[in-house]
Amino acid sequence: MDFVRFPTISAQPNHEADLKNCATWLAQHLRCIGFDDVRMVPTKRHPLVLANWQGAPGRPSLLIYGHYDVQPVDPLSKWHSPPFEPVIRGPDLYGRGACDDKGQMFTHVKALEAYLQTMGAPPLNVKCLFEGEEEIGSPSLLPYVVRNKDALAADAAVISDTRMLGPNRPAINYAERGALYLEIEVDGPEHDLHSGNFGGAVHNPIQALCEIIAKLHDANGRIAVPGLYESVRSWSKKERAQMARAGPSDVQILEDAQVELGWGERGYTPYERLTIRPALTINGITGGYQGPGGKGVIPARATAKLSFRLVPDQNPRGVERLFRTHIARITPPTLRSTVRTLSSAEPAVVDPRHPAVRAAALAYRKSFGEAPIFLRSGGTIPILSVFQNTLGMPAVLMGFALPGDRIHAPNEKFHLPNFFRGIETSIWFMDALARLHSTRLCSAPRGERA
Amino acid sequence: MDFVRFPTISAQPNHEADLKNCATWLAQHLRCIGFDDVRMVPTKRHPLVLANWQGAPGRPSLLIYGHYDVQPVDPLSKWHSPPFEPVIRGPDLYGRGACDDKGQMFTHVKALEAYLQTMGAPPLNVKCLFEGEEEIGSPSLLPYVVRNKDALAADAAVISDTRMLGPNRPAINYAERGALYLEIEVDGPEHDLHSGNFGGAVHNPIQALCEIIAKLHDANGRIAVPGLYESVRSWSKKERAQMARAGPSDVQILEDAQVELGWGERGYTPYERLTIRPALTINGITGGYQGPGGKGVIPARATAKLSFRLVPDQNPRGVERLFRTHIARITPPTLRSTVRTLSSAEPAVVDPRHPAVRAAALAYRKSFGEAPIFLRSGGTIPILSVFQNTLGMPAVLMGFALPGDRIHAPNEKFHLPNFFRGIETSIWFMDALARLHSTRLCSAPRGERA
Repeated sequence: MDFVRFPTISAQPNHEADLKNCATWLAQHLRCIGFDDVRMVPTKRHPLVLANWQGAPGRPSLLIYGHYDVQPVDPLSKWHSPPFEPVIRGPDLYGRGACDDKGQMFTHVKALEAYLQTMGAPPLNVKCLFEGEEEIGSPSLLPYVVRNKDALAADAAVISDTRMLGPNRPAINYAERGALYLEIEVDGPEHDLHSGNFGGAVHNPIQALCEIIAKLHDANGRIAVPGLYESVRSWSKKERAQMARAGPSDVQILEDAQVELGWGERGYTPYERLTIRPALTINGITGGYQGPGGKGVIPARATAKLSFRLVPDQNPRGVERLFRTHIARITPPTLRSTVRTLSSAEPAVVDPRHPAVRAAALAYRKSFGEAPIFLRSGGTIPILSVFQNTLGMPAVLMGFALPGDRIHAPNEKFHLPNFFRGIETSIWFMDALARLHSTRLCSAPRGERA
Repeated sequence: MDFVRFPTISAQPNHEADLKNCATWLAQHLRCIGFDDVRMVPTKRHPLVLANWQGAPGRPSLLIYGHYDVQPVDPLSKWHSPPFEPVIRGPDLYGRGACDDKGQMFTHVKALEAYLQTMGAPPLNVKCLFEGEEEIGSPSLLPYVVRNKDALAADAAVISDTRMLGPNRPAINYAERGALYLEIEVDGPEHDLHSGNFGGAVHNPIQALCEIIAKLHDANGRIAVPGLYESVRSWSKKERAQMARAGPSDVQILEDAQVELGWGERGYTPYERLTIRPALTINGITGGYQGPGGKGVIPARATAKLSFRLVPDQNPRGVERLFRTHIARITPPTLRSTVRTLSSAEPAVVDPRHPAVRAAALAYRKSFGEAPIFLRSGGTIPILSVFQNTLGMPAVLMGFALPGDRIHAPNEKFHLPNFFRGIETSIWFMDALARLHSTRLCSAPRGERA
């Protein structure tokens, strides 16, 4: 609860001190539970927290990644309790970041504490890498990891920032979508104009922005940016049938979202739309008067925030190029449009047959009494593709979030039974991993290309 | 400046006390300048201020209308000085409401003060009717005027809330567009959803709202609401040629708006688009995340504010019906839409040959040294159609605003030379009107039907 109490909204500059305070608290906490070697690394924005334990020579080493930053909290009025005043109601801990990702990353911290306080040491070498910029696309971490490749080298990484299918249905994700976050601004008149005096004879930036956005999807729910699907990998009938067997049902996905009717690209199931097909979401829009009542105005500008989720074999730079070309082509000559790129991340895939993943599956069976299902995820963990592709390090996505945990939304929560079972899972995972030889981990087969 | 200092934003409930205080101040000011019979009339929202002077039996009576409420001030950051701290820079007084309508209505108050303080009395009978709800569609005044028809009866009304063509180019407006102000809300999921976990499989309210808005205009700049143009009056070549001669040029309109390229309904000039053709303006839009950086979310809802400007022979109720039907038809089944009506006003036309209008023209010639041009306006004065059509009272639109006064926009100003000449114009207008017999005013020919 102390950890959740820090309002660590990385996107908002006014929270900079909160992130620093939280990082300091986290570093101190790691020292308290028994780590000697703990460092805070300043970045251009929010600090990294690193902790190192190398007391098991000859044993494998594990890199534990997590993030202490959180999403913005608005709409604030929809929260039943203040987002940064964590509170337990029933079996759940409510608060922004309780699940994504403070609660989930803390399972490993508490597992390490258990080892340090009972056995005196974890059963393998451990490097903790905690960042404060995941929700803004990890702009500092990505180059840091590449620059510090050797210092961060490990036999496997573990990331707990993904979902299970239900309280007793553990899951290991083996694929994450990439992301490309953009902002588009449409500028019209120099200043707001009276809509009576000029309405009908001056082009309206809100109207133009809406018309541009309306041209980003076609009637079949496909993204209407020319060329966008050219690099999207196609899947065999057999692969799709496998996915259908493992993945959540259509009904389950709609229930999780609490919507009655699905929507999306024709010819694909909801699970496929969320995992092996790209998506384009308008995350926010603003323009003109938004207060109570009315205001007779043609506004000077309107802006929208939007994000692509990308799948193999798309890459953010290519998609950005196609998007910018499309926007330039469909912007009417009566107005100006500007596209800004906020962040990007590559899609990534983990080989589910890797021994480290099998060790995780074993750990789930011991803690939850159930074998985990292997799932693709629609979400994005920016560092994943760097671990997988740049460092060649397998990353186990060992998630403990529930579909109803409302991550990124008001009333985010973490299911406390999952927290405690998550700690157990982490303990068993380190135990299983420690029993494997480093060599076996490194010579593991490479699976599906990312 | 005292008058402008009251932040009388009628649309925003938190300014209720400011409107009351301003009305009290105004009533007191009218008493100070010599009115004995001054009343504040409470309404459901903001009070009316009435002042009466019936000391000229046998002479015509004049109803002076104005409004002390103002538009919202945002975007506040665009103001060069605080909107409610009036300041004189060069020949202009800056402040929200300086022009619309506090400054303009005050020309008549000061003209009356001049008569009362020099001649002891105005040359005719006067009824002042000042309201605090014009910018929200005059919801209290419209029924009040109908209920108090007899008490408010006068030979003519004067309203100063319109524009001239330039500092030395006086104009009398003889037509105002009507208005219909609406809000549309699109509701999707129960709460905001993670755009990675659900993006591509759940319909996005912002996207749907944009697609709905994109369906409100066609490629020719026409409003795409079926049936909307059926009641729009068509104009002969001769009438359009007359308008072209009297009205501002295309270049002038673009210069006033400070835009390079015009936009609008194909086949009509900018002046026609602004006056004899209906317009639909999106005044505001809001949805999802609007802060700095990004937020990976599918929002639960998105809303837009929009307003029609209506022309003869449209009526707001008919247009509202067509709009609601259209929105219901184009809302996809995956989401829900709601339309709310905020305010409405009928279009209105004044006969430019009416003796009261001629008296105004004479007054302009004396004060500005120029004959006024007769113009149609794109704006809306909700009470105008009630004066004209319900009370059968001619209303003279004697405006002193300049095209560059930025009404409804940041840095609204009033050109002080126009203020002083406006006072003179009002003095000459009352003088000219007083010389006409009441009977001549009432038996004036009825002109173009409204």
